[in-house]
Amino acid sequence: MSFIRQQFNDDASQTKAFNGIQPNKLAARLTALSQIGRTKTGGVTRLAYTNEEAHAKRLLTQWGTRIGLTMREDEVGNLIGRLEGTQPDLGAVATGSHIDTVVNGGAFDGALGAVASLCAIESLLEDGKSFPRPLEWIIFVNEEGSRFPTGIYGSQVMMGEFTEADLERYADKDGVTLVDALKNQGFDPHKLAKAHRQHKGFYAFIELHIEQGKRLEKANIPIGVVSGIAGPLWLQGTFKGESDHAGNTPMGMRKDAAVAGAEWLVAIESLPAQFSQTAVATVGQQTVYPNTPNVISGEATLTVDIRDIELTQRNRLVEAIQAAGLEIAAKRGLDFSYQVLTDIAPVPISAFIQETIKTSGEKLGLPTMTLPSGAGHDAMIIGRHVPHTGMIFVPSVDGRSHCPEEFTSLDDCVKGTAVLKDVLAQLLTSIN
Amino acid sequence: MSFIRQQFNDDASQTKAFNGIQPNKLAARLTALSQIGRTKTGGVTRLAYTNEEAHAKRLLTQWGTRIGLTMREDEVGNLIGRLEGTQPDLGAVATGSHIDTVVNGGAFDGALGAVASLCAIESLLEDGKSFPRPLEWIIFVNEEGSRFPTGIYGSQVMMGEFTEADLERYADKDGVTLVDALKNQGFDPHKLAKAHRQHKGFYAFIELHIEQGKRLEKANIPIGVVSGIAGPLWLQGTFKGESDHAGNTPMGMRKDAAVAGAEWLVAIESLPAQFSQTAVATVGQQTVYPNTPNVISGEATLTVDIRDIELTQRNRLVEAIQAAGLEIAAKRGLDFSYQVLTDIAPVPISAFIQETIKTSGEKLGLPTMTLPSGAGHDAMIIGRHVPHTGMIFVPSVDGRSHCPEEFTSLDDCVKGTAVLKDVLAQLLTSIN
Repeated sequence: MSFIRQQFNDDASQTKAFNGIQPNKLAARLTALSQIGRTKTGGVTRLAYTNEEAHAKRLLTQWGTRIGLTMREDEVGNLIGRLEGTQPDLGAVATGSHIDTVVNGGAFDGALGAVASLCAIESLLEDGKSFPRPLEWIIFVNEEGSRFPTGIYGSQVMMGEFTEADLERYADKDGVTLVDALKNQGFDPHKLAKAHRQHKGFYAFIELHIEQGKRLEKANIPIGVVSGIAGPLWLQGTFKGESDHAGNTPMGMRKDAAVAGAEWLVAIESLPAQFSQTAVATVGQQTVYPNTPNVISGEATLTVDIRDIELTQRNRLVEAIQAAGLEIAAKRGLDFSYQVLTDIAPVPISAFIQETIKTSGEKLGLPTMTLPSGAGHDAMIIGRHVPHTGMIFVPSVDGRSHCPEEFTSLDDCVKGTAVLKDVLAQLLTSIN
Repeated sequence: MSFIRQQFNDDASQTKAFNGIQPNKLAARLTALSQIGRTKTGGVTRLAYTNEEAHAKRLLTQWGTRIGLTMREDEVGNLIGRLEGTQPDLGAVATGSHIDTVVNGGAFDGALGAVASLCAIESLLEDGKSFPRPLEWIIFVNEEGSRFPTGIYGSQVMMGEFTEADLERYADKDGVTLVDALKNQGFDPHKLAKAHRQHKGFYAFIELHIEQGKRLEKANIPIGVVSGIAGPLWLQGTFKGESDHAGNTPMGMRKDAAVAGAEWLVAIESLPAQFSQTAVATVGQQTVYPNTPNVISGEATLTVDIRDIELTQRNRLVEAIQAAGLEIAAKRGLDFSYQVLTDIAPVPISAFIQETIKTSGEKLGLPTMTLPSGAGHDAMIIGRHVPHTGMIFVPSVDGRSHCPEEFTSLDDCVKGTAVLKDVLAQLLTSIN
């Protein structure tokens, strides 16, 4: 019995229904989904365009159909369930997430958003209400990018940011191209453009997701109102010194690239606080050359992941980090060069959507915390095109994510879903 | 035409004979040796117990025989040429080095000492002198440890520090054991103990070697008098923190092992100067886990190479480095553990031998510089047993070593050999 099944079984009998959301239904669905692609260590591997993903989508299609949605797949495999509104010409309110995982990932990243949005819609329909706006349930394909190195892909296709020509650029580690992967799953790559919708037909998009951090848990708050999605900029800096014998080169005659890199790393840690409270900078990857105990490093390369939810202040931090590297190199007589490997602009979340989520929380008596999303999500892509895009975070136990231990209590799942339901209800009736 | 052949051809016609040492002979021998195991990039790969090494030893055996030495191989392949003295019961004066290399190494490390000692002996014999003490020319097998991870092995066997049982512990990367490698070259591993000589029969051992550093070159001094051989201690320290999401973990909530490691590295750089002028400490190898740009490092492991020529002061430095790691970990709320991977005691060189080399330099009008050897050498092993052990260093161009660019001008090779010849002459007539 997997971790999630055991925990959820224990919890389901004790967790109360909330705003019409049934804990047992949510638990059963999330558990069923976690069995598809389950690994020996209790994790889940469900990669894009695999049989596991197709299997999961068949299950979701049955669930969507059963609650009354008209289900279809678009030309790249995004799964879309639709319910017309009383005023079908109005833009739709969409909600959903993704169901692909990293290798040996958890049962909640993406999957919880997929199941929670279904449960929220189901509960809205059970309440017997009808709404002016159409409603869409969307499960994006290939968010993680774990098989093909192009994450948040399904949402990019839908928003017209990823074209047929882009398909050629990617292959998985076995050499299967993205083009062939699409064909193998019965899709025609030439029809990709038909999946483009841009902002047309959308009024709002709301994604519920686990926080993948410890802020909600530490503050003991069940609902996170995402203030912005921090686009990462990856800055790779390389110090070049001189590779000398560790024994025969006195300390004063060295040009040690590893020490320069270390000095930069320490400096980087102190810089974000000088620019904003939401900024972070991390050196998670570093290599020294030749990486041998008795040879002074001739080269050190560090990759800095820099994030903030506002572009101008993030870029000021990037500049300060670059300047620190240049200063350290100049002081030590080394060369320093840098390049930007990735640069995704942050997406601010509108005050309107943040307020809507907070209002739902208050209405349901649930405390909320406003916090940035440091991770990228499909909502980041959608938010560039659909102004009323927002995200609801639920707590991650111990902040764990992308691993079998990833967990959110059923109570927190239900509370988040209850808020999502209320937010959808507000937006579906909003005809501004 | 390889680098050494071209340079030496250019130099040989312009370099003057010195104290009887013929530049063209020295150049021709060193160049011939450099062709055995030559690589495509102009380097040399001549590993222990390979056909290349056997080929080189055949050549050296011919050369030794030709100048009048009685040549033999001991039970593990150390090559020994002997010339009896007028008082054969006196301890021998030995000189030599090694002819194995690292993978794609240079033409001078070891090989120059082997050729220079031969040329020095040849010139002594050409001078027609006879000496009370026996003379030995010794080429140690497997100094580098590049094939079997047990360097300075031939000298350890000869001094009785390496026994038959130790053979079992080593294999090369293809799985060939040291036992089989010996057998494949015609040696009987069971007879290893017959190669043990300890200090018995030795009066002195002098090794000429390239500096593998830049001190002589920068000071423009041709002769280095080695004051001590700094035994390296390898201290491996590991910081354990928490591996969290780089985007969703605020700076103040992190336990980043990579930053702790970097802070330690910067601290280590400043510590040797507090203990002695000869101490050095280097972090040449480091790994972080999981080493991914968008994940905060949960673990960082750094290997510190710490050297000094005096044991007590070296160990004080080791303690200070350990204390710095513990302090940084405590301040940051991380775990820190360390282990000693290698600990070779430094070998001081006796004042008598240092003085003997300086006197030879003065006699020949060559400036000398006293300096520690940061690298280990066969002389380090011999020096534990034979008190009159010394080393002469010659300049390394740009400090390069263990690479195809390794180079020492022919003029410097000749000067070093001239000093070696005079030192041998002094010692061979010393009957204290």
